[in-house]
Amino acid sequence: MTSSPEREFVLDHLDDLHADLEAWVRIPSISADPAHAGDVADSAAWLAEALRRTGFPTVEIWPTPGAPAVYAEWPSADADAPVALVYGHHDVQPVDPPELWEHPPFEPTRVDGPDGPELHGRGASDDKGVLIVHLLGLRAHLAATGRDTPAVTVKLLIEGEEESGSPHFPALLQQRRDRLGCDVVVVSDTGMAAPDVPSAVTAMRGLADAEITLRGPAVDLHSGSFGGAVPNPLHAMAELLATLHDDRGRVTLPGFYDKVRPLSDRERELMSRVPFDERAWLAGPAASRATYGEEGFSTLERTGARPTAEVNGMWGGYTGPGHKTIIPAEAHAKVTFRLVSDQRPEDVGPQLRAWVAANVPAGIEAEVHTPPGGVSPCSSDLDSPAMEALLRAIGQAFDTAPEDVLLTREGGSGPEADLVEALGAPLLFLGAGLPTDRIHSPNERVLLPMLSRGAEAAAHLWRELGAMRLR
Amino acid sequence: MTSSPEREFVLDHLDDLHADLEAWVRIPSISADPAHAGDVADSAAWLAEALRRTGFPTVEIWPTPGAPAVYAEWPSADADAPVALVYGHHDVQPVDPPELWEHPPFEPTRVDGPDGPELHGRGASDDKGVLIVHLLGLRAHLAATGRDTPAVTVKLLIEGEEESGSPHFPALLQQRRDRLGCDVVVVSDTGMAAPDVPSAVTAMRGLADAEITLRGPAVDLHSGSFGGAVPNPLHAMAELLATLHDDRGRVTLPGFYDKVRPLSDRERELMSRVPFDERAWLAGPAASRATYGEEGFSTLERTGARPTAEVNGMWGGYTGPGHKTIIPAEAHAKVTFRLVSDQRPEDVGPQLRAWVAANVPAGIEAEVHTPPGGVSPCSSDLDSPAMEALLRAIGQAFDTAPEDVLLTREGGSGPEADLVEALGAPLLFLGAGLPTDRIHSPNERVLLPMLSRGAEAAAHLWRELGAMRLR
Repeated sequence: MTSSPEREFVLDHLDDLHADLEAWVRIPSISADPAHAGDVADSAAWLAEALRRTGFPTVEIWPTPGAPAVYAEWPSADADAPVALVYGHHDVQPVDPPELWEHPPFEPTRVDGPDGPELHGRGASDDKGVLIVHLLGLRAHLAATGRDTPAVTVKLLIEGEEESGSPHFPALLQQRRDRLGCDVVVVSDTGMAAPDVPSAVTAMRGLADAEITLRGPAVDLHSGSFGGAVPNPLHAMAELLATLHDDRGRVTLPGFYDKVRPLSDRERELMSRVPFDERAWLAGPAASRATYGEEGFSTLERTGARPTAEVNGMWGGYTGPGHKTIIPAEAHAKVTFRLVSDQRPEDVGPQLRAWVAANVPAGIEAEVHTPPGGVSPCSSDLDSPAMEALLRAIGQAFDTAPEDVLLTREGGSGPEADLVEALGAPLLFLGAGLPTDRIHSPNERVLLPMLSRGAEAAAHLWRELGAMRLR
Repeated sequence: MTSSPEREFVLDHLDDLHADLEAWVRIPSISADPAHAGDVADSAAWLAEALRRTGFPTVEIWPTPGAPAVYAEWPSADADAPVALVYGHHDVQPVDPPELWEHPPFEPTRVDGPDGPELHGRGASDDKGVLIVHLLGLRAHLAATGRDTPAVTVKLLIEGEEESGSPHFPALLQQRRDRLGCDVVVVSDTGMAAPDVPSAVTAMRGLADAEITLRGPAVDLHSGSFGGAVPNPLHAMAELLATLHDDRGRVTLPGFYDKVRPLSDRERELMSRVPFDERAWLAGPAASRATYGEEGFSTLERTGARPTAEVNGMWGGYTGPGHKTIIPAEAHAKVTFRLVSDQRPEDVGPQLRAWVAANVPAGIEAEVHTPPGGVSPCSSDLDSPAMEALLRAIGQAFDTAPEDVLLTREGGSGPEADLVEALGAPLLFLGAGLPTDRIHSPNERVLLPMLSRGAEAAAHLWRELGAMRLR
């Protein structure tokens, strides 16, 4: 193992990183729940204070019509230094069902796991843990290089509504565009392939969401008097959603695959290098009995590189104890679509409407609601100098050659595409979460040694990017 | 129009009937809601008092582990008079959704409708309205015949849990069997074909209910990280329920139709005589855009004489505002089956389990819960002397020859089969509700002239049955 001044500084100051993360996780910044609006504001205030303490000369809280974002800027003294903008979020997912948590979600708890010490708590990984490395990483960069200011101008934009679909983020980007100019966007909201497998995300899927309402009788009907003689919207919803995928696991919306860029042989080869133990994945993070999906693609391709349709919620009729013998007036379903390049979220609504109209049974009225917005898919340029800098930085932090840093794809979606669009800068992904972190689920955790590697990689990245003179 | 002393008495005392019904409807005796347990007890107490006031020498409230039943007995002075037992229920359906009611459900409101005055309110028809006719009917019988005691011994057993599936009724019948001996059971919980169409129900469907739970991942999963790669229980539920009926609208459970007695030509001919305006039915009570159902059968046959499967409720995943991008751990559905002779409710559980096991997709675990009990189908003997008495009584009340009283079938289910089984007596149905009464729905109502006809038919029935000397 080749040490470095960056690594030495990080290892000497790990307690700071752990203490900061624990303090931040204690703040239940659930953006989806209006009752937690005050906590989301507290989370922003805590982060602003932590950034000031780290040394950022400019730290601001940017209000939005929803939750506040935090902006910070530390200019490089070098006149021609590139500008990097770090993106992340300080809000967290809801915790339900609370009874499945082994430790209270907002009382961060250290647990010794098979791969080293873990910290359990909502947000311990997504995104507070993944993001917190930048505080120690920047200090390590300065200490290791003996600089007073970073080798790149570092800007941070940490939003507070990512877990609620970032409804006000595009407007914020437009409004603050003059402050956000940069040469590269560093997204810190992702993970690596496995604890001992340095890797970089190169793409994220997009997202479009929809709600389908089917209406049958004008009122709930007595199923004794009317059962078997009029269309039941719950039957219609089952029949409709049963055809959302064909026998090959492909989404059946007309035109859904038209803009999907086929995976190249090189891309498939790069993905196949990522070590993946399907049995362990099923038994562990996926907690499932079988794989499933689109014919002709591996599980990693299915989750990272192919578009999907998932029913996230479905309801209608009587759902209380015992039975109520009704034909309900309505049935509902929430569906989200993950998109890959070059699909556009705004295409999904018309495709879904056409599909529903063509498949809804006689006597059932359908309504499809697709909220405006959605998330576009996005990806890194594998051949750019910034990408080379990132792979060198990760390689050093993990004692690996840059060409052995694996390239992965993230199945989730965030507002990264908005950043690309608004700021016109290329994307890098630096994040030290793990697929086993149980993000969005009970017992979320982070592997603490990954955060120390992440802090070191961040420190190396500023030096490497500074040396590249991107502009 | 041929009048009769019974009719004259009824018409002279209609205000009593209306006042009694309004007072009873004011009591929100919703048996499914534990918060209304006191109201169900109040409803029993009100009925007991009304029966005492009518003249019943014996009136008792029979407690059960659930809601109380009311029992009353008025022995005939004639030693060899037959014994008739009237069955009905004093509990009512829940009112949700309350915002769809034009008048508060427990403030009975008189409305002038196209067929005459209506009374609106929960229970105005089912079953308080249909049942209340026996108070005035018995008084009319005594007044018209000049008797001090009825021509038959009249017993009433009015339960308080019919709308909750009569969970304690079979045990009550066993426990009180020595008090309930009778020659004929008169069920008063049904309706006639139309306002000007005298008819008698001759059969009711049985009922079996079930809840299906499908389990996929052990916890809710992030649909970005896992979507498209593991089975989603909501997709599985949609696929499963989409195959509950085949292309011909037949229920696909193996063996489901094995014990169904085919409709005879005579039965189909009798049903075809019932006037039925399908367009008016769709626009009115069914409030639906199209008919639907088993190939080869009319709407009246589908609702009355054929077995059905209806999904009454379905739920799983995220159902709140906005979206939550999960693959949920579980999906649920409530399904009820209507049964016809000679199907048995206890057969449905094994049939459903076999069907689910054969159709559940890989990676999904299924659980089928079928509560014990259920309701058997039941029917009247069309050729019995008691049936002839009933048709004569209804004919007189509606100024129609007995052979012109139409025979219908009731699609709903009640504990009538338990009465037949426990008491060994044949069934008659006397009820003056209408298919347009919106029972179990918002804005339930009863057509008041039907209740006056019903009271008159009840008065005629006691005289006719007394004359038959059934025992």
